[in-house]
Amino acid sequence: MDFCDLIIKKRSGRELSEDEIRYLVKGTVDESIPDYQLSAFLMAVVFQGMTDRETAALTMAMAYSGETVDLSELCYTVDKHSTGGVGDKTSLIVGPIAAACGCTVAKMSGKGLGHTGGTIDKLESVPGVRTEMSKEAFLKQAKSVGLVIAGQSGDLAPADKKLYALRDVTGTVESLPLIVSSIMSKKLASGANSIVLDVKTGSGAFMHTLEDSCRLAQSMVTIGRACGRKIDAVISDMSAPLGNCIGNAMEVEEAIEVLKGNGPEDLKELCLELASDMVRLALDISAKEAKDKAQKALDTGYAAQCFGRFMLAQGAKADPIEHPELLPKARYSMPVIASQSGYLTAVDALALGNVSLKLGAGRKTKKDVIDPAAGIRVYKKPGDYVHKGDLLAMLYTNQECACVIPDSAYAFEEEKPKPRSLIYKTFV
Amino acid sequence: MDFCDLIIKKRSGRELSEDEIRYLVKGTVDESIPDYQLSAFLMAVVFQGMTDRETAALTMAMAYSGETVDLSELCYTVDKHSTGGVGDKTSLIVGPIAAACGCTVAKMSGKGLGHTGGTIDKLESVPGVRTEMSKEAFLKQAKSVGLVIAGQSGDLAPADKKLYALRDVTGTVESLPLIVSSIMSKKLASGANSIVLDVKTGSGAFMHTLEDSCRLAQSMVTIGRACGRKIDAVISDMSAPLGNCIGNAMEVEEAIEVLKGNGPEDLKELCLELASDMVRLALDISAKEAKDKAQKALDTGYAAQCFGRFMLAQGAKADPIEHPELLPKARYSMPVIASQSGYLTAVDALALGNVSLKLGAGRKTKKDVIDPAAGIRVYKKPGDYVHKGDLLAMLYTNQECACVIPDSAYAFEEEKPKPRSLIYKTFV
Repeated sequence: MDFCDLIIKKRSGRELSEDEIRYLVKGTVDESIPDYQLSAFLMAVVFQGMTDRETAALTMAMAYSGETVDLSELCYTVDKHSTGGVGDKTSLIVGPIAAACGCTVAKMSGKGLGHTGGTIDKLESVPGVRTEMSKEAFLKQAKSVGLVIAGQSGDLAPADKKLYALRDVTGTVESLPLIVSSIMSKKLASGANSIVLDVKTGSGAFMHTLEDSCRLAQSMVTIGRACGRKIDAVISDMSAPLGNCIGNAMEVEEAIEVLKGNGPEDLKELCLELASDMVRLALDISAKEAKDKAQKALDTGYAAQCFGRFMLAQGAKADPIEHPELLPKARYSMPVIASQSGYLTAVDALALGNVSLKLGAGRKTKKDVIDPAAGIRVYKKPGDYVHKGDLLAMLYTNQECACVIPDSAYAFEEEKPKPRSLIYKTFV
Repeated sequence: MDFCDLIIKKRSGRELSEDEIRYLVKGTVDESIPDYQLSAFLMAVVFQGMTDRETAALTMAMAYSGETVDLSELCYTVDKHSTGGVGDKTSLIVGPIAAACGCTVAKMSGKGLGHTGGTIDKLESVPGVRTEMSKEAFLKQAKSVGLVIAGQSGDLAPADKKLYALRDVTGTVESLPLIVSSIMSKKLASGANSIVLDVKTGSGAFMHTLEDSCRLAQSMVTIGRACGRKIDAVISDMSAPLGNCIGNAMEVEEAIEVLKGNGPEDLKELCLELASDMVRLALDISAKEAKDKAQKALDTGYAAQCFGRFMLAQGAKADPIEHPELLPKARYSMPVIASQSGYLTAVDALALGNVSLKLGAGRKTKKDVIDPAAGIRVYKKPGDYVHKGDLLAMLYTNQECACVIPDSAYAFEEEKPKPRSLIYKTFV
């Protein structure tokens, strides 16, 4: 097989066979296909797309291109994946709820680039917590606690790792089948039977429009099912930050608030939706039963207990629910004051994400070191009435820097806006 | 400047600035832009195209990316370029005619891949002829003989050399602006003031449809003029072979026939058209004057004399017009016999080209060695009436191989077909 012929086939809009796609993935991993051919192929995919059959074949081939996690000795395994957003700490909440309901959440998570850290970074903001562990320790904790989160092994879906690095420097990131196969190959390799996807939409999300987010969700669900997994998706709003806290340790704190029955309404609502979905898929019960179970796990405090056990198992010096004083605090704080009165109609997630990155809460390149204490506490959200001079937000950092949230991040109106939708759509 | 941003700009359909294109070409030559980024960019160009301004900037930047030939001390310099076809030996005829009319033809020619060799290979089929020479020898012969043809220097338009090699293995050859800039950058670097393009159309041509050929011609003329050259184009038929001979030494023989006032009508007609155009552009005279001059150069035998002087200057052991017996002859010949009667409506150029390649007349890869004596003599052309059992063609080779022209190369009809057009269009 000459890979140039496959490039021309894709460029001409014809469908590649499963064998041809396996050849592509094999050649990516063993480096028999040179990068300059791969990148030309990827650009052709950007323009010509891929059929569902091609995307499924690519996903499967990438999923099995390296090590896979075998969870077959565990019961009711379920995973949740978010496409990423500002203030998204749902994994820290839905994991314990699902575990409290009898599911097993054995999760691999990547160290993401972004406005704030990934789940791994949030966890590691708790003193003592470690996410590097052996396979044996990973499975042991999954069995005993029902919840374990580890850093993603370098050998998981190596074809995706290689292709993603190439896409990143060749302007070929924005392609639905490439995004879908990249996410789904890692999810499949991670081994959970059931998967719930949280696809974000809006300024702070990877996909800015509802239409694009729906296409992404639909495609991932189709591919996941074609590959034999139980999978559903939720489309949720990311035009404003989720919850009130942005920044790693602050997000842990807020997650604890929700697990204790408090916390902001939007975060609680989304977490209950996602957790119910996880429980429903994993235990194969009705939506109502699942929702009741999830709510009960919260109300009884059993989910919070699970979180504590999970934290200690991951190495925390103490249960952060009992000892919140252990979480790191920033040295400096700066208030953000309202310059006018009116109803807030927008608190732009992307703008706040960019500020939190500057404060030190995220990383631009893999080498950047995250400040776990840095972040933003949001006091006013869309729909709130604000008086001129009110505190809109508070910025926290350990750097001596002058950061402000630009005025354009906020929009005001005189009339009370209609309440925004948090959850747009669920795929069942 | 980050080249990935330029890839994304092109992918999104936006126009690159001249500076950005110069950055691309510089980075190609000094290898500061990695191949995998270049190939992704090239694929984006395949889909998004380039504006005339971008194509002109790319052409100019590639033309001046290395050595250029300075012909400023010569008068009335003119070049002819053909996009390539089966049996195309026009350079061997129009060069001497133009020189006989007072033009200077100082031509660089590449060793092409294809069904038969390029002009260089045809010339080198004459015993003794050399096309490698110093700059000084090149200019000296141009002055004294008015006609010189040398192999293209590796330092001419190195950016094109690099990009073409990459396009060849990444499925990005078929892109109008890339084809145009590749051809035109070499023509500009070769220094002639006037350029006549012979754009072939039909099965044996690079462009199979008249529409595509016209677009290519129009674009090259536009770019050439934007770069300050006098330039015209002719679109000519390449659905059937040009003339009756295919193969290097046989094509030299046929060129001599035309220069002596004989030879097949189609070849004579096209050569007179191209030569007249060259003379008109270079001497800045009317079309009628130019045509009369070219015809006279043929009729008086002065063009043939020029050819002889040219051959001897290039190292030929003797003038092949006087000593045709010096040209190499093939050991084996195989007749191709008509299996039916009727009017021939098609003699497929591509099919005959492929057979001539198998006979040894062309090269598939740069390493292949050409057999100068191999080739095909065509006895029947479209429009001719053929009786079953007539000789359609004769194959010549030095290899012990069994080659046949497939029946599908010939089409018959009972009624006499309308005469085909040889010249479809001229751009003035």
